[in-house]
Amino acid sequence: MEKLFDTVSIVGPGLIGGSIGLALRRRELARHVIGIGRRQSSLDIAVDVGAIDETSLDPAAGVQEADLVILATPISTIIRLAPTIIDAMPADSILTEVASTKQSVIKAINQTQPSDKGISFVPTHPMAGSEKRGAGNADEHLFESSVCIICPTSKSVSREWQRITQMWEKLGARVSYMKPAEHDRLVARISHLPHIAAAALMQTVTPQQGEFAGGGLIDTTRIASGDPGLWRDICATNVDAIAEGIDTLIDELRQMNEFLTQGQLQKLEQRFDASKQKRDKMLRLRRDKKDNPNTQ
Amino acid sequence: MEKLFDTVSIVGPGLIGGSIGLALRRRELARHVIGIGRRQSSLDIAVDVGAIDETSLDPAAGVQEADLVILATPISTIIRLAPTIIDAMPADSILTEVASTKQSVIKAINQTQPSDKGISFVPTHPMAGSEKRGAGNADEHLFESSVCIICPTSKSVSREWQRITQMWEKLGARVSYMKPAEHDRLVARISHLPHIAAAALMQTVTPQQGEFAGGGLIDTTRIASGDPGLWRDICATNVDAIAEGIDTLIDELRQMNEFLTQGQLQKLEQRFDASKQKRDKMLRLRRDKKDNPNTQ
Repeated sequence: MEKLFDTVSIVGPGLIGGSIGLALRRRELARHVIGIGRRQSSLDIAVDVGAIDETSLDPAAGVQEADLVILATPISTIIRLAPTIIDAMPADSILTEVASTKQSVIKAINQTQPSDKGISFVPTHPMAGSEKRGAGNADEHLFESSVCIICPTSKSVSREWQRITQMWEKLGARVSYMKPAEHDRLVARISHLPHIAAAALMQTVTPQQGEFAGGGLIDTTRIASGDPGLWRDICATNVDAIAEGIDTLIDELRQMNEFLTQGQLQKLEQRFDASKQKRDKMLRLRRDKKDNPNTQ
Repeated sequence: MEKLFDTVSIVGPGLIGGSIGLALRRRELARHVIGIGRRQSSLDIAVDVGAIDETSLDPAAGVQEADLVILATPISTIIRLAPTIIDAMPADSILTEVASTKQSVIKAINQTQPSDKGISFVPTHPMAGSEKRGAGNADEHLFESSVCIICPTSKSVSREWQRITQMWEKLGARVSYMKPAEHDRLVARISHLPHIAAAALMQTVTPQQGEFAGGGLIDTTRIASGDPGLWRDICATNVDAIAEGIDTLIDELRQMNEFLTQGQLQKLEQRFDASKQKRDKMLRLRRDKKDNPNTQ
């Protein structure tokens, strides 16, 4: 059976990049996977866990045989390395990236004009992850039952989209298409704002107080253990949508505090009930989609 | 071997009460466990899962043979039922409850003067739970590696404290003693504020947006699926400490938003990093305590 890709180069084979590599290799979707990074020790871990076949410390050298290049570093590194990598990629190859925000990354990559040398650029965002870092935490099942958003751009070519769509589906994800601006507004609410909320909440307790906590505090703040630099990049490239989200959250907290302090406990309970209904409905919708992945 | 208790009556054998009953029975710490509730159907579930031996719809009749009565209903029901139950309890028996706030419950129960008829009152708060409800979700391991806070009161008697301490330790919890006011301030931060934050955050997304989310939003809002009426009672009996917590959280969110919108991304990253350090330290402290439970 012919493989989906021949040589795949993953720039930044950490948690996400490493999980992609591991899943591609275990499912035999690529003949050869090269991991490109700055530190040999990190790349060696990626080899040890089976995420990549070969290592390279040189981005240009590492991509020159690839029919698919996956950029899986923090956003600022993607933007910094893109010109070098595009310059070194073979003609007619595919470039994809998995950044958490899309507009600024797409703008930066399109400015280097990959299509001029026949490179197809397919921006994606797999909606899966962990607060943990590094290929040592890579998981070939990470993307199963998750959504992968693909952002069509004017420079994307249809056949290459289909191959990337196929790849994500073979990794277990449902693929959804969305315009970059729409994507960034969506993830501000479902990913970036929760991170801000978790980090802010962690500031309201001491580690010593947290020793007494049940599972609630632990789960509510889980993502606050994520990589601060990664989150800085994400915030820097989605300022307006995140700021609007924070304002909305503050308004809601202020409203609840008013109900609480003015003795309007019935109204506070209604708010709690509305949140519970919304969350329970969200879980039902997610379950339905998992059971019937092709009906969306 | 003599059992720790002869007859234990659990008023409200739901998730917490049912888990206590199940653990007491499986570990053979009680000879006979009676579950008292309002609906026979709910009590039947508690029997089916093995949480109780016998059911009663009448609080007074259900406690008259008990050497230990555990009040595990929402707070407003504890306060409403306490006089009837204390009146029906045998002399020299022990009364305990597992409410999430302590000052108002202790005040209400002490006003009925249980010590006048030789009943010892030992207020406790097991720091474990779930967003799920009912004895159908009872778990005999729920309290393992958790903390159970016991609040000494002027009317408590030392030997009975020791028996309740022993019970919680046999259920796998570490016991910690704390004054009621101190307890209420602590749980405002580590339990009540996270619930408010989760409920508020759930208001910032639609269930349809949430379909796309990775694990972050799901975990951050998990406790927002908790019982609204239960949380209303909790908030109503800890207003000042929760309101202060909400103000602190809003201040932190406002600060982060200022860093974000004024381009002070370095400062925002430092905030994220501080939250990560705090959380990672909290997890280390918890792990150390679990490994060395007797060193506190």
